[in-house]
Amino acid sequence: MKPEPVSIGTRMKILVVHAHPEPKSFNTAMCHAAVEELTLLGHSVQVSDLYAMEFNAVASRHDFHARAGADYCVYALEQRHAVQHGTLAPDIQAELDKLLWCDLLVLVFPMFWFSTPAIMKGWIDRVLVSGKVYGGKRFYEKGGLAGKQALVCTSLGGQQHMFDADGVHGPILDMLKPLLQGTLAYVGMQVLEPFIAWHVPYISHEERLKILEAWRTRLQDLGHAAVLRTPSLDDFDSRLVPLKTAR
Amino acid sequence: MKPEPVSIGTRMKILVVHAHPEPKSFNTAMCHAAVEELTLLGHSVQVSDLYAMEFNAVASRHDFHARAGADYCVYALEQRHAVQHGTLAPDIQAELDKLLWCDLLVLVFPMFWFSTPAIMKGWIDRVLVSGKVYGGKRFYEKGGLAGKQALVCTSLGGQQHMFDADGVHGPILDMLKPLLQGTLAYVGMQVLEPFIAWHVPYISHEERLKILEAWRTRLQDLGHAAVLRTPSLDDFDSRLVPLKTAR
Repeated sequence: MKPEPVSIGTRMKILVVHAHPEPKSFNTAMCHAAVEELTLLGHSVQVSDLYAMEFNAVASRHDFHARAGADYCVYALEQRHAVQHGTLAPDIQAELDKLLWCDLLVLVFPMFWFSTPAIMKGWIDRVLVSGKVYGGKRFYEKGGLAGKQALVCTSLGGQQHMFDADGVHGPILDMLKPLLQGTLAYVGMQVLEPFIAWHVPYISHEERLKILEAWRTRLQDLGHAAVLRTPSLDDFDSRLVPLKTAR
Repeated sequence: MKPEPVSIGTRMKILVVHAHPEPKSFNTAMCHAAVEELTLLGHSVQVSDLYAMEFNAVASRHDFHARAGADYCVYALEQRHAVQHGTLAPDIQAELDKLLWCDLLVLVFPMFWFSTPAIMKGWIDRVLVSGKVYGGKRFYEKGGLAGKQALVCTSLGGQQHMFDADGVHGPILDMLKPLLQGTLAYVGMQVLEPFIAWHVPYISHEERLKILEAWRTRLQDLGHAAVLRTPSLDDFDSRLVPLKTAR
């Protein structure tokens, strides 16, 4: 059962999670443009600006006030216990509430080492809690966030041709696979084609304005967004052996 | 000019960077086994246990005491400025010194969302400084850490067949690409085949002991370790267009 693409004109609940160390950066401008454009379009928008919030990036035993295992912390088991008993740390619970509220999650971040800045990785590590968002056999289309969508918007210094199939780094979707497939699709979200702002530190003001315009246009057209192909459990048996070779 | 594989019997300087929230975890046991085995083999070993150090995971303007740009923080430019003027934050400088000292970097971590825990991502974001470790045209085999080697040791809940070419998640090397290629190879390191401990939360004590033995054996045989194929700038022109299509 796959969620249908959002119809044009549908009002959505949208959570924008942003992480950039410089509030005057182009990346932050992309975040602001998203909030403005999405609000103008009639959507309900919440924002988690992780640097402004000084969000705690580090998953640790301190995230659980009433621990299931006093002497030995298995983070995912503690998450499940805390979800069950309503004892998640308040900063995690607040973000989880926003995540469960939203129809669409938008992640806006600069590429640091071909992935998210650590503060956003920490948001993923801490907020995508086992027992609610995934766990047991609930992953990919059976994940806890099935029915929601995710959109990644990232900026980087590299040029687009460096990420061609024969480019020096290889395809950008390959570099983003742990995030797009291993995280967003894993928890059940339908993953939209990411928006990439290339070569940002080296281009002109006018070129940057054009990127902001293209980003706004993308947001106006969410109902037509391309959806990435991600794994489906339908292709595997219960032990996750591919069905074509399963006995 | 590619560094030669380390000869058997060579004494090396080795930095082990470790990140796990539970000091009694199997992953931490893998870290301890590495330190013990490498020391027994006659290597010099330093350890950065990021959780024990309460390492600051978040790259920010606070990392620079004497800023190049007072009003606008471009993190990579501030790194270059701080490297040049010796004004890196002390916790970054201490880690950078260890990194520049070592011949082999060993990263020991549990897979969180198909990548490193945020605290280790923060170590990468903050310690791999522009102007020293990479920058300008110094990346891949021209990276600032050319001549060094890197070895990833990670543990996860998933089973090996889930990461077959036709497995539900796809190859583990693809999931680790941002780290293996986009980070370790990018800064010039020769990347050894990672050591993967599969299915750890679900296996018996005896099976875990076998993994620890296999890990020690890997470490005894570093001179024969397989090296991953990573991009070479020799295959591209100065604009990073592939040479076969370059005009």
